[in-house]
This record gives sequence, C-alpha cells and structure tokens, in this order.
Amino acid sequence: MKKFEEKTIKTEQIFTGRMIDLSVDTVVLPDGTESTREIVKHPGAVAIIALTDEGKIVVVEQYRKPLEKSLLEIPAGKLELGEDPVETAKRELEEETGYRANRITYLTSSYTSPGFANEILYFYLADQLTAVENGLQADDDEFVEVFEYTLEELAGFEKSQRIHDLKTSYAIQYLKLRNDKGTF
Amino acid sequence: MKKFEEKTIKTEQIFTGRMIDLSVDTVVLPDGTESTREIVKHPGAVAIIALTDEGKIVVVEQYRKPLEKSLLEIPAGKLELGEDPVETAKRELEEETGYRANRITYLTSSYTSPGFANEILYFYLADQLTAVENGLQADDDEFVEVFEYTLEELAGFEKSQRIHDLKTSYAIQYLKLRNDKGTF
Repeated sequence: MKKFEEKTIKTEQIFTGRMIDLSVDTVVLPDGTESTREIVKHPGAVAIIALTDEGKIVVVEQYRKPLEKSLLEIPAGKLELGEDPVETAKRELEEETGYRANRITYLTSSYTSPGFANEILYFYLADQLTAVENGLQADDDEFVEVFEYTLEELAGFEKSQRIHDLKTSYAIQYLKLRNDKGTF
Repeated sequence: MKKFEEKTIKTEQIFTGRMIDLSVDTVVLPDGTESTREIVKHPGAVAIIALTDEGKIVVVEQYRKPLEKSLLEIPAGKLELGEDPVETAKRELEEETGYRANRITYLTSSYTSPGFANEILYFYLADQLTAVENGLQADDDEFVEVFEYTLEELAGFEKSQRIHDLKTSYAIQYLKLRNDKGTF
C-alpha cells in the first residue's frame, strides 16, 4: 500500500555506522508541501522463542547501553549481509545460548519502530534443543548470561521490568495464547 | 540491573533532529576492552488500544517513510517535552482519530529496539469513546485515515501485512488474551 506516499526529493546521508545508518530525507507530502523525515536504516534482525524439552524458555541477560540497564530478553541478533534470516536465527541461538535447534519454525515478521527506523524482526520458534560443546562464540563485544525460565516466571519478570522490551513481551503473549489453545 | 555494565568514556554527538538524536559512545566492556555503541535517543511515545462501544478497534493508516509503505496501526505518537504519557495518549487519540476517551487505562511500558534506541512505548486501553467535532488537529505533516475493525479483521490484516508493526501485533495478542479470559 502506498496511500499518502511521500516522495523523496533529497536525501542527506548523516551517518554510516557499524549497526545503523542515519539519513534525513526531504519529502513532498500528499498536500504538496515539503517536510523532512529522519530515517534510521538497520539490516533487520531475528528473535528466537527457544523452548527446552522441559517447556522452559531460553532467555539471555545483557546490558543495553541505550537504556543504561541490563534486560532479560529472548535471544536475538542482526542479519549479516545477504544472510537468510533462518540461518541468522540458528547462528544467534547457538552463539548466545550454546543451544542448537533440531527444529526451527518461522512465525512472523514485524517492524519495531516504523516512525523512524526500518528495523524488521523475524520471529522463529526453536525446539528440540541440543547443548553444543565448543560451538559458535558470541561477538567479542557481546556479554550475555543464559537462563531458562517457565512462562509464569517470565510473566513475573515483566512486572518487575527485568523483562522490558517489546519482542520479549510479544513472545510471552504468543506462548500464553499457544497454551490457551492447548497446543503445548 | 547493571550486570555487564558498559561505562561511557566518550560521547560523540552526531545528530540532533526533530524526532531523534544520534550519538556514538565509546564504552569500556566488562573485560576491560573498548568498543563503540551507536545510540538513538527518542523522547518516548504512547500507543493506544481504543475500543468502540461495538467492540471494534480504532486504527489509523499512514505512510511510513522508513518502510516506503503505508501501514495500518493502533494510534500512537511521541511525547512532548515534560508531558505526562496519559495526556499524550488522550491528545494523540483525539488528534489522530477524532475520538475522546471517557476512560483510559495504563497497561504497560516497553522498549521497542533496545539494541540501538531508547524509545519506550507506553500502552493505554481507551474506551467509552465520544466523537469530537472540531477537536484537536493532527500535526501539519501527518496524513492519516481512520478505520474501525473487529479483532478478527485485524488478525486478517496481519496475515496480508497491511498490519506489520510490533506494537499493533502486541495489541492484537493483548485483545485475544483478554477475550480468552472472558473479560470482554
């Protein structure tokens, strides 16, 4: 859908970084007037709902510099250039948690901040997990601690805001709905 | 929680915009090495699950320049400086949809992209809606069309990706769970 399309008449590249780029586009609005749009370009990322054989959810705790606090989140990571998201999901799950998934199922995709960023998240459900010895290592600048919790425990961490990001809260809702339907 | 805290030793301000700012922080990692973090600062925003007396959900369609497509989303908007989020929620609902809510209930808050941005979303449930004649007007550069759909219709738009953002998919799951509990 292109309703209310805003045509770009100028793009000013502000920043090219390791994770994101920033540009300011001058656009023509539907009424013919001009405005500017600040646009963060992101390569996209995966988020993985990983379930152990005991029905626990694998989560990672890491420091989130933009928030100046650490959060408990479902495993996630950004796409490498040209990488199929399902391969990113397998790689990030192993790097961050040490688990390899024998079964990985695509769930949905979603934009996280459509007002100012093009980041898209691909959600996967991973199960039949095997712990990998000497597997893929996390990036040098990533420090994460891995935990496994029940859905009820995760819901409690939402209340205390140790879980405080939308992809993880979406995953918790997804699992609650799945339980309600009796498929788990 | 400050686990794996990354201390800032330098902040380079890259950009100060209308909606977002960008800085690159040089940080010391837990192992003593240095790295950089690209950080988008955002004022925070509200998202409103607005229900009509008929049980339909009020959604708005708008062009999202970062995605180069229009999306159907729940009403949302960013906080003005010093504004209480509940006041933002009332203002944005009226500006974007022409509805005033007689009852507005805070649900939760959540970070949308904790890897690179500090944007936080405050979710509200709004009902007992009244259409306002000559009410608050949207910003000059906002073009939105208002729709009211059932929950089932919204779930269909998720499949066709006319709905394709995480706050709206979170809202859909929230309403499904609420229905399952029989409170609606």
